[in-house]
Amino acid sequence: MAKKKIGIIGATGYTGSELVRILTNHPDIEITMITSETRKGELFSDVHPFLQGIANQKLVSINDIDKYELDLVFLALPHGVSMDFVKRFKDSSFKIIDLSGDFRLNSKEVYEKWYKLSHIFPEGIEKAVFGCPELYFDKIKDANLIANPGCFPTTAILGLAPLLKANLIEENQIIVDSKTGVTGAGIKAKNVNLYSNVNDNFKAYGLKYHRHTVEIQGILDDVSGKETLIQFTPHLLPVDRGILTTIYIRPKEKMNEIKLKELYKTFYAKAPFVRLRKQEPAIKDVRGTNYCDLFVTYDKRTNMVIVISVIDNLIKGAAGQAVQNMNIMFGLDETTGLNLIPLNP
Amino acid sequence: MAKKKIGIIGATGYTGSELVRILTNHPDIEITMITSETRKGELFSDVHPFLQGIANQKLVSINDIDKYELDLVFLALPHGVSMDFVKRFKDSSFKIIDLSGDFRLNSKEVYEKWYKLSHIFPEGIEKAVFGCPELYFDKIKDANLIANPGCFPTTAILGLAPLLKANLIEENQIIVDSKTGVTGAGIKAKNVNLYSNVNDNFKAYGLKYHRHTVEIQGILDDVSGKETLIQFTPHLLPVDRGILTTIYIRPKEKMNEIKLKELYKTFYAKAPFVRLRKQEPAIKDVRGTNYCDLFVTYDKRTNMVIVISVIDNLIKGAAGQAVQNMNIMFGLDETTGLNLIPLNP
Amino acid sequence: MAKKKIGIIGATGYTGSELVRILTNHPDIEITMITSETRKGELFSDVHPFLQGIANQKLVSINDIDKYELDLVFLALPHGVSMDFVKRFKDSSFKIIDLSGDFRLNSKEVYEKWYKLSHIFPEGIEKAVFGCPELYFDKIKDANLIANPGCFPTTAILGLAPLLKANLIEENQIIVDSKTGVTGAGIKAKNVNLYSNVNDNFKAYGLKYHRHTVEIQGILDDVSGKETLIQFTPHLLPVDRGILTTIYIRPKEKMNEIKLKELYKTFYAKAPFVRLRKQEPAIKDVRGTNYCDLFVTYDKRTNMVIVISVIDNLIKGAAGQAVQNMNIMFGLDETTGLNLIPLNP
Amino acid sequence: MAKKKIGIIGATGYTGSELVRILTNHPDIEITMITSETRKGELFSDVHPFLQGIANQKLVSINDIDKYELDLVFLALPHGVSMDFVKRFKDSSFKIIDLSGDFRLNSKEVYEKWYKLSHIFPEGIEKAVFGCPELYFDKIKDANLIANPGCFPTTAILGLAPLLKANLIEENQIIVDSKTGVTGAGIKAKNVNLYSNVNDNFKAYGLKYHRHTVEIQGILDDVSGKETLIQFTPHLLPVDRGILTTIYIRPKEKMNEIKLKELYKTFYAKAPFVRLRKQEPAIKDVRGTNYCDLFVTYDKRTNMVIVISVIDNLIKGAAGQAVQNMNIMFGLDETTGLNLIPLNP
Repeated sequence: MAKKKIGIIGATGYTGSELVRILTNHPDIEITMITSETRKGELFSDVHPFLQGIANQKLVSINDIDKYELDLVFLALPHGVSMDFVKRFKDSSFKIIDLSGDFRLNSKEVYEKWYKLSHIFPEGIEKAVFGCPELYFDKIKDANLIANPGCFPTTAILGLAPLLKANLIEENQIIVDSKTGVTGAGIKAKNVNLYSNVNDNFKAYGLKYHRHTVEIQGILDDVSGKETLIQFTPHLLPVDRGILTTIYIRPKEKMNEIKLKELYKTFYAKAPFVRLRKQEPAIKDVRGTNYCDLFVTYDKRTNMVIVISVIDNLIKGAAGQAVQNMNIMFGLDETTGLNLIPLNP
Repeated sequence: MAKKKIGIIGATGYTGSELVRILTNHPDIEITMITSETRKGELFSDVHPFLQGIANQKLVSINDIDKYELDLVFLALPHGVSMDFVKRFKDSSFKIIDLSGDFRLNSKEVYEKWYKLSHIFPEGIEKAVFGCPELYFDKIKDANLIANPGCFPTTAILGLAPLLKANLIEENQIIVDSKTGVTGAGIKAKNVNLYSNVNDNFKAYGLKYHRHTVEIQGILDDVSGKETLIQFTPHLLPVDRGILTTIYIRPKEKMNEIKLKELYKTFYAKAPFVRLRKQEPAIKDVRGTNYCDLFVTYDKRTNMVIVISVIDNLIKGAAGQAVQNMNIMFGLDETTGLNLIPLNP
Repeated sequence: MAKKKIGIIGATGYTGSELVRILTNHPDIEITMITSETRKGELFSDVHPFLQGIANQKLVSINDIDKYELDLVFLALPHGVSMDFVKRFKDSSFKIIDLSGDFRLNSKEVYEKWYKLSHIFPEGIEKAVFGCPELYFDKIKDANLIANPGCFPTTAILGLAPLLKANLIEENQIIVDSKTGVTGAGIKAKNVNLYSNVNDNFKAYGLKYHRHTVEIQGILDDVSGKETLIQFTPHLLPVDRGILTTIYIRPKEKMNEIKLKELYKTFYAKAPFVRLRKQEPAIKDVRGTNYCDLFVTYDKRTNMVIVISVIDNLIKGAAGQAVQNMNIMFGLDETTGLNLIPLNP
Repeated sequence: MAKKKIGIIGATGYTGSELVRILTNHPDIEITMITSETRKGELFSDVHPFLQGIANQKLVSINDIDKYELDLVFLALPHGVSMDFVKRFKDSSFKIIDLSGDFRLNSKEVYEKWYKLSHIFPEGIEKAVFGCPELYFDKIKDANLIANPGCFPTTAILGLAPLLKANLIEENQIIVDSKTGVTGAGIKAKNVNLYSNVNDNFKAYGLKYHRHTVEIQGILDDVSGKETLIQFTPHLLPVDRGILTTIYIRPKEKMNEIKLKELYKTFYAKAPFVRLRKQEPAIKDVRGTNYCDLFVTYDKRTNMVIVISVIDNLIKGAAGQAVQNMNIMFGLDETTGLNLIPLNP
């Protein structure tokens, strides 16, 4: 089989560099084009010097896209910008995996309320498939436009889906307490990712109004067939990458530890990247990989289920999940090129 | 007034060194004796070299205690060991502030169930006053034995007391999600505080069974006059010191942001170390100080109150609160020697 | 004695906040004015929220300076800006301690070569005293304008002065390998202090051309009476504050470990902030304090002297040394208000 | 070609887990046996839980080694223990790559002086080839026993070899100032790798007497044909992995920046893992990979050459270099299985 031709739109951020890092060793594709409007003409390794000698592609402009016969493009663009691209190239022959938030929500209205931006391409919202392979494998296979899930939502959705699907829990009393590494804030220097504001420090942010709240709720509504209500609080960890989400869930009736674990085992029997852990997982256990590690337990004393869900936000929370979606869209084995082993320590 | 004579029992841990750090500049006391059975004969600064030239006291054995006419001793000993000391010196003239967990719980039975140890001095449990000055100022003034609060309980109790006292919340649906620095695990090298197990990492531990659960519940029962039920989950942060606790609370009826903030303002009007913050506090905002920073907010969408509570676990969570208790017991101004300013960054 | 009236020019950076942190507990002065052109009208604690309830001064403009009868001002301004202030207020009655690099070098020419800026007030260079109390105590006492030393130079100068003064070493073969915390790069977010560029990382920078090279050489020339030649290489540590400098020195003749240590002991006999350490000092041993910790040793095998010199860059390397200079200028005990104890851990 | 059968002796340390991490994706070998005397019977992933589902080999005892027809074993044992194994299996058919220091030095005498241990198998010292492929490729190809280089020596040797080989520098005035991550101290919890002793901290250690001094000198003597003298000072960084070494070198005559860079380019023309960097490299630029990044420059002002040399201590400084040696011994391409891309950030 000829190698598939891949374009990466947006080279300067972490999503771009992670895509290149993963795809460089992928056996069935070739990176044909990487774009950057601000750095075009330079090498990819000028932007990311640690890739000197590894990824020396010359950066080009989006306007040159017609020169390449691309099979698929990844959009590593900020939200609000992705939708421009998708609209402009809606009739192109290449498939699109969008890593921004532009096509993840249920409607133009919800998007505009939570993102405080107008959505210029609601048609894309209709068409887009939410790229969570553990839930929507078959739809992804046939999709032309993937809305790649947000990092926090990936942890919450994978942590909650089995219980909601089985209709075992109160769907309007779910607490999602998340802790994320700093790369979630992007590669641009600002106060929130200034070293001395983060190092040896810890804080909550975005209380009550973080956009991922509604992304999580939208998918969980679909999974459960009911209206869910999520209290979502993100916190900023002094680590580069990784998200750990602690979820507190009220079961409808008393539960049983063994059956609870069995439920998750069955639900994820065919999911190569979900690891059901014997112990509480740590962020470093998945660092550099596409795994989502889950730990579930039931507290008889309080009648509460606790789920701990861990990912690398740049991989299962972004570039890795995107490659997983690409593999599915190309009919490849889901795990191709994703045989990444945790870098720990 | 003659300076009060102070003894510190247990010199090798962080609690010991923090007590010395704080008391060295305290105007009304003198450190008369510091004990260590394993390092006696050495200087305090041999054990903690960063105090070379600052704290050069010679370490002695507990058995020499009668040579000194002490007014008060701090016990910086592990739980299970403190009670031996308290029993042995129960008729001594000095007052005791115990920084271990040995006298914090309500009964011998509860202690033995959660600490998996037999309690050899239940009489002490009866006598001990829980050293939370914001709640028990008057009792502390007259106490001879103080059970200095645990670090996690300090954040949870100060975060919850106003709402429970006012009978505004469901007392059996409280979720306390805490994140602590590594010094909480003590100064002895072990897997849990091995650098490469902690750095760039994050995990939950002690799910469902952490001892501080029952310490929190005991005090909150007393505050509310009802039986509380707490789901407490600690997590380990890659930081040296600091605890941030996120508390999720279901109000009995719909609330109001302004009244909520007013309630806390009134409750802590005379508490010099509780700061009601305008923004979400970060751990470094209180580093090196005796402050407990609180932030409270109400989410109309979900009908939930969220409280964020932050301390330095070694200070307001241990040595600083102990000195605050000492000041009260001596009739000094509560803040004497505690004019510590956050080291940030 | 009436309290001295102090002004701090420049409130938004780390130097400003450290000055306030130290001076707030100083018994003999009061902070009368803090200026900020960009944040005037706001409170100091709006700019540095961790000081809420501690430092609530209202920020004013430099143009209001005549309203206050100041005894002394600290300039916490960038280099290139300080000289404007010094020139403008050269006839004022207040003394000035400038924390920038504008008046530290020997001449307008050297300044302009290494700072790539023209110097608008060379008269100030003539007048300014280099504020290293361990070398220039008497001159500082009578000075009206202090050039407060740079952070790296403080470590190098204190580490080398005894040997150079005694004429024991090759003055043109000195290697100064320094490692600094991130706060040295200032409070503004930029690539160099972006969390994920620093965390779990380490690199050299400014090879061959760092400005502090010539500041060190200038003072060492004065100490030794000869022309020194320094190879200075700074590196960036993933820590907030602290500098450790390793100095490699070729002695003119074979040396002796005991005499070497004796030399330093004698030289620093009256220096309250220089601690001659028994072991190799670590950065955290001086964190939050005005100490400079030194360790010296001789390697017979290679005929080399190694000196390790450690400070907190924001304190002995900036605000603390400035307060030490202020104390001397006011005839106070050098250590007043500087009884800071290391925060470790 | 049938896959080669590999044994790993010693499973519990970082070297063992890194070997497994690398070899798991190696196309031409299979991990046939992993031993641990303390954990035998357990799974490899019980010892390293982050490998759950990835490396589930059952650990066996060394005494079972005859059951497996091994082609090569890696010794991931402490020094002083490796030599027992090598002696015991000196007549076995498998090749040995020893990652300890037991066979790296020139003689029994030197070993015993610097390691303070008697060497029970001096015959092995004679036979062993120092596994630095950039210098000894041909010898490695034919070796049966490889002494895999130490982590610090790898940086120093690769940084210095071109200049020494060309006889351009003073061989007895070399200063090697190294900074290492914490994993260099091993996986066992002790004071040196206790989180709060390392975090936000930095210090020198092993001044004048570190064993790697003599390992570096031994190889450089061989490269230069002269007796070298190295001043080597290691420092401990608050990072997990990585070494950055700054080398100060006195040239015999004035040099030229361009020719200097050309010299290195020629010397390493065929070395796939040496990257000559355009800028000063940082530790994270090589994290998780087998690269050694070098930067060389000449300072006209001081007549000094500065070399900066960076590796991942667990990979190019241990397991990765060992796999590189294995590839050479098996006649495979040197880079097989080592197409690792830096994890940055």
